[in-house]
Amino acid sequence: MTKKMNKRMLSGIKPTGRPHIGNYFGAMRQFVELQDSFESVFVFIADYHALNTAKNPEELTNNILNLAIDYLAIGLDPQKVIFYQQSKISEHTELAWIFNTLTPMPVLERAHVYKDAKAKGKEISVGDFDYPILMSSDILIYDADVVPVGRDQKQHIEIARDTAQRFNNLYGDTFNLPEEYILESTQTIPGIDGKKMSKSYKNTIPLFSTEEEIENLSKRVVTNSDGSFPENLFTIHKLFKNEDELKPIYEKYAGQFKILKEILAEDINTFLTPLRNRRLEIEKNKSEVLDILEKGAEVAKNIASNKMVDVRKKLGVIIN
Amino acid sequence: MTKKMNKRMLSGIKPTGRPHIGNYFGAMRQFVELQDSFESVFVFIADYHALNTAKNPEELTNNILNLAIDYLAIGLDPQKVIFYQQSKISEHTELAWIFNTLTPMPVLERAHVYKDAKAKGKEISVGDFDYPILMSSDILIYDADVVPVGRDQKQHIEIARDTAQRFNNLYGDTFNLPEEYILESTQTIPGIDGKKMSKSYKNTIPLFSTEEEIENLSKRVVTNSDGSFPENLFTIHKLFKNEDELKPIYEKYAGQFKILKEILAEDINTFLTPLRNRRLEIEKNKSEVLDILEKGAEVAKNIASNKMVDVRKKLGVIIN
Repeated sequence: MTKKMNKRMLSGIKPTGRPHIGNYFGAMRQFVELQDSFESVFVFIADYHALNTAKNPEELTNNILNLAIDYLAIGLDPQKVIFYQQSKISEHTELAWIFNTLTPMPVLERAHVYKDAKAKGKEISVGDFDYPILMSSDILIYDADVVPVGRDQKQHIEIARDTAQRFNNLYGDTFNLPEEYILESTQTIPGIDGKKMSKSYKNTIPLFSTEEEIENLSKRVVTNSDGSFPENLFTIHKLFKNEDELKPIYEKYAGQFKILKEILAEDINTFLTPLRNRRLEIEKNKSEVLDILEKGAEVAKNIASNKMVDVRKKLGVIIN
Repeated sequence: MTKKMNKRMLSGIKPTGRPHIGNYFGAMRQFVELQDSFESVFVFIADYHALNTAKNPEELTNNILNLAIDYLAIGLDPQKVIFYQQSKISEHTELAWIFNTLTPMPVLERAHVYKDAKAKGKEISVGDFDYPILMSSDILIYDADVVPVGRDQKQHIEIARDTAQRFNNLYGDTFNLPEEYILESTQTIPGIDGKKMSKSYKNTIPLFSTEEEIENLSKRVVTNSDGSFPENLFTIHKLFKNEDELKPIYEKYAGQFKILKEILAEDINTFLTPLRNRRLEIEKNKSEVLDILEKGAEVAKNIASNKMVDVRKKLGVIIN
């Protein structure tokens, strides 16, 4: 067992639908591995953030439940992790309002994500604009030390730090200053068409596909018709089998893409079968999943509401 | 007794310090009179709105408590009114976040108050910008029918109505559409220097002044040195004594401003003494005031949290 850091890690995950193997290798797996590196780990389903785009209630309900099942299936351990829905803890949005009153408009107007969306002429909601402040609250209310994020989210952790400092300067030392933990950006994982694997390109291999889906998707991975080395196939294949084992196979079946694709399907299925089975098992016990989220919410609520007592006292809104 | 409208009235008051007779005649009195006109009345101390400007905790605490005492002293009746602090009901800020995710940025960018502040180059907080959405939540969470406001606040009620409609369109009928009740704009009340009575001009007659303060302030009401009719004095005086009674007095003592000012002081004190005494009485029983706010918060919390169960179900964040 690795030595644990005496720090508190926190991360939020948006419920956006079925994950694919790009999500798994690019973030989910790394993320679950971190549960063994910290004394205390908070993971929440960011359903109140998701509302900015998720306007279909049934779909959102399914996505929340499935996200919980997905993460439990890949090894998120509720014994090690406080796992809960953001919407169960009203203190997140309450503290976000308080931070709103301390935050000058230019802080959010300068945020990359907002500026990019604006430059592209996208329709932006007030929730999109205010997103970094709710994120600050998500983090600061639990005094998180470390927040694992992709490189594109670094600025949001800076905003959280500035927000903590702004409050502390005005009202005295209250919030811990969090630090980002930048997730290793693994090589870009290609989709079956060779472009970056992404839901928007419809080129993904869903993580919890059935055996048949994997066989069909493997057949569709693009290769060059000139019989040259199938880079794309190989890059995907590498995720599931050691490169040293793979090379002789690709030499032996050079140009025989049908066979190589069958081997890919087999290797993906070998890798996925235990995850898939665990998922099926967990799915059968929905009430257990709800129980895990319920218990996580209880623990989180307790910490968050204690913190808010301190915050409200410092603001001067508690009269006695 | 007037016949009550079978409607729910709601109003928020910002805790901003000692009220003056301009506030009293311009809004507070009208406002308290309305408690007899509606079946159900909600009045809250808008302390979470106040945070946009109130950065001194001790001052805010005092202002909240004093606001409660002031309103009880002028006749706000806790038997008729649900009276509570906004910050006690976390559902206000929670629902505000949900509305944020539904509100396109231009809705708030077009708000007069924001545009004016921006045009004047004022420093604007995210809370200032988002103020109309928290106000929408304050109103809609209790399904208020009627919100008494000054003419300058009319647009905010329109935003609340639009917000209700936006939610109802997406998730089904949930929120009542509120209407504004424009408070009678009484004639502008002059300060002791003849300009509009306003804290920023330091020309006010505080509502709960002592007898001595009233005597001193009355002496300082400006009159013309040429002995012409003291319009300013007369306008203030009219608030406290019937015009028909006043006219002969002002004829009798024409040009004798010292005497008229003494009569003014006497009439103000006759009017204020019962209010002042009630205030002193209430101030002695601070625990009773806290009890009133506590009970009000309990009732409000119960209504607000029931409403939020419905809202969360409709959003799709309740899994079962």
